[in-house]
Amino acid sequence: MQSSSLTRAPPQTGINNQGVRAGRGGQLEMLRGKRVIVTGASSGIGEQMAYHLARMETHLLLTARTEAKLQKVVERCLELATKKLVCFEMLVPNSKPALLPGGLDMLILNHIGFSHFNYFNGDVGHIRKLLETNFLSYVAMTVSALPMLKESDGSIVVISSMAGRIGTPFIAPYSATKFALEGFFSSLRHEFILEKVNVSITLCVLGYINTGKLTVSHAVQDTPAPKEECALEIIKSGALRQRELYYPPRLLGSMLLLHAIAPDFLDSLIRSNYKLENVRRT
Amino acid sequence: MQSSSLTRAPPQTGINNQGVRAGRGGQLEMLRGKRVIVTGASSGIGEQMAYHLARMETHLLLTARTEAKLQKVVERCLELATKKLVCFEMLVPNSKPALLPGGLDMLILNHIGFSHFNYFNGDVGHIRKLLETNFLSYVAMTVSALPMLKESDGSIVVISSMAGRIGTPFIAPYSATKFALEGFFSSLRHEFILEKVNVSITLCVLGYINTGKLTVSHAVQDTPAPKEECALEIIKSGALRQRELYYPPRLLGSMLLLHAIAPDFLDSLIRSNYKLENVRRT
Repeated sequence: MQSSSLTRAPPQTGINNQGVRAGRGGQLEMLRGKRVIVTGASSGIGEQMAYHLARMETHLLLTARTEAKLQKVVERCLELATKKLVCFEMLVPNSKPALLPGGLDMLILNHIGFSHFNYFNGDVGHIRKLLETNFLSYVAMTVSALPMLKESDGSIVVISSMAGRIGTPFIAPYSATKFALEGFFSSLRHEFILEKVNVSITLCVLGYINTGKLTVSHAVQDTPAPKEECALEIIKSGALRQRELYYPPRLLGSMLLLHAIAPDFLDSLIRSNYKLENVRRT
Repeated sequence: MQSSSLTRAPPQTGINNQGVRAGRGGQLEMLRGKRVIVTGASSGIGEQMAYHLARMETHLLLTARTEAKLQKVVERCLELATKKLVCFEMLVPNSKPALLPGGLDMLILNHIGFSHFNYFNGDVGHIRKLLETNFLSYVAMTVSALPMLKESDGSIVVISSMAGRIGTPFIAPYSATKFALEGFFSSLRHEFILEKVNVSITLCVLGYINTGKLTVSHAVQDTPAPKEECALEIIKSGALRQRELYYPPRLLGSMLLLHAIAPDFLDSLIRSNYKLENVRRT
């Protein structure tokens, strides 16, 4: 791992409350040289975030469970980063603080465990395990990283889901874990503001994206949104210290408004969107 | 424990889709003789639900962790039930199905573990433990009870909280567990409807109630709503198979609408409601 700068950047050059400036090749210049962790970076949206951040010449620390897959992402990142400012370390979620870098500007929590897409089968142990991966490890990493993020006036970016705001069928355990994230980090954000802790928390509410992680294409009628653009929007929202990101924005905005004013109608719409013949109890 | 009727009530006399009729002394006659479980019944809203249900002459099964406290509730219930139709069994949450009665019409999941009211102190183990009590045991009891609830076209009533919909400070672990309930049971409700399982799920979103369980009176400026009325509204909402209950209704309705259309403004309102000088890190 290359050494990253441990000196605290002066506020005026930090990423706080600064506009995102699109530079050469669409790069977000404000993130150049910043120290960023992305978890779950070996595939899906996490992989795409790694490529964007490499192009932006950040100091990168990527985590994943599958070292071989992550190694390929690392190689591609090194090809993309012209100034070779990128550095990597492969770790699994729940890693101890000692494995975190000496300084940190942005923690992007993105990894998830495997979820079934089916009627709930009564397996409470599966929910417990999924809570460990999708929720409790996010809290543990936040606790570990917080001293460094306080030092840098940094940012926490939590990848959530529409399924963390609105109940949808066939993903009850996954939904529980994403709801838990929303509850915990929304509450924590209040405490940071009250305590004048200048660490932003951005909750990213994502719709149906072509990540390949939760394969639902056989059962839903929508077209997934591109993971490349989604990944860029997440990075932007974190850099701008937004409270929340909705992606894709129009569809999710409409759904959340309907959820507030006509929940029964929205529920009917949601249920009508599934090809039930392709969802059979396993 | 007195034996409860195991025969399935004909639909026209069941509690499904029937209006709630206030009888003598405000009793809900439709619930007479129905088999109801209330968890966390030794204090707070659970205790009040037990008294209402005893007056309604239901077959009651109450659970709590503290046997001595529950015994007093049982004695009071027996005084209230003029026809002595009430029966009891003391159990702890996470009890095995063998302890459930031979038939069941309504499962009211109400118990919670102890929560701090303070800035999050980084204790991930506390969240894990609270998830077991406030969330995973609800799922486990639902799984155990479901065959009986399917048999009776019964009802599941889940006691949640405004803190399960909107993040508020000083209760991040509690909030995570209540959000998880909302996600899981909203998803499960969709699956029941799609599978034509005639078991209703009612999510009860409660505001600040004078339960004494989560002592916040030193730090918030609101006046708590009465637990007696709250308990009755919960029972009604379950009997009517409502999707959701908001109590107190006006305040919570306004907050949820603001949450949808002006979340930042609502967040500011929420933060201004605390007496911060009374919340000190412990």
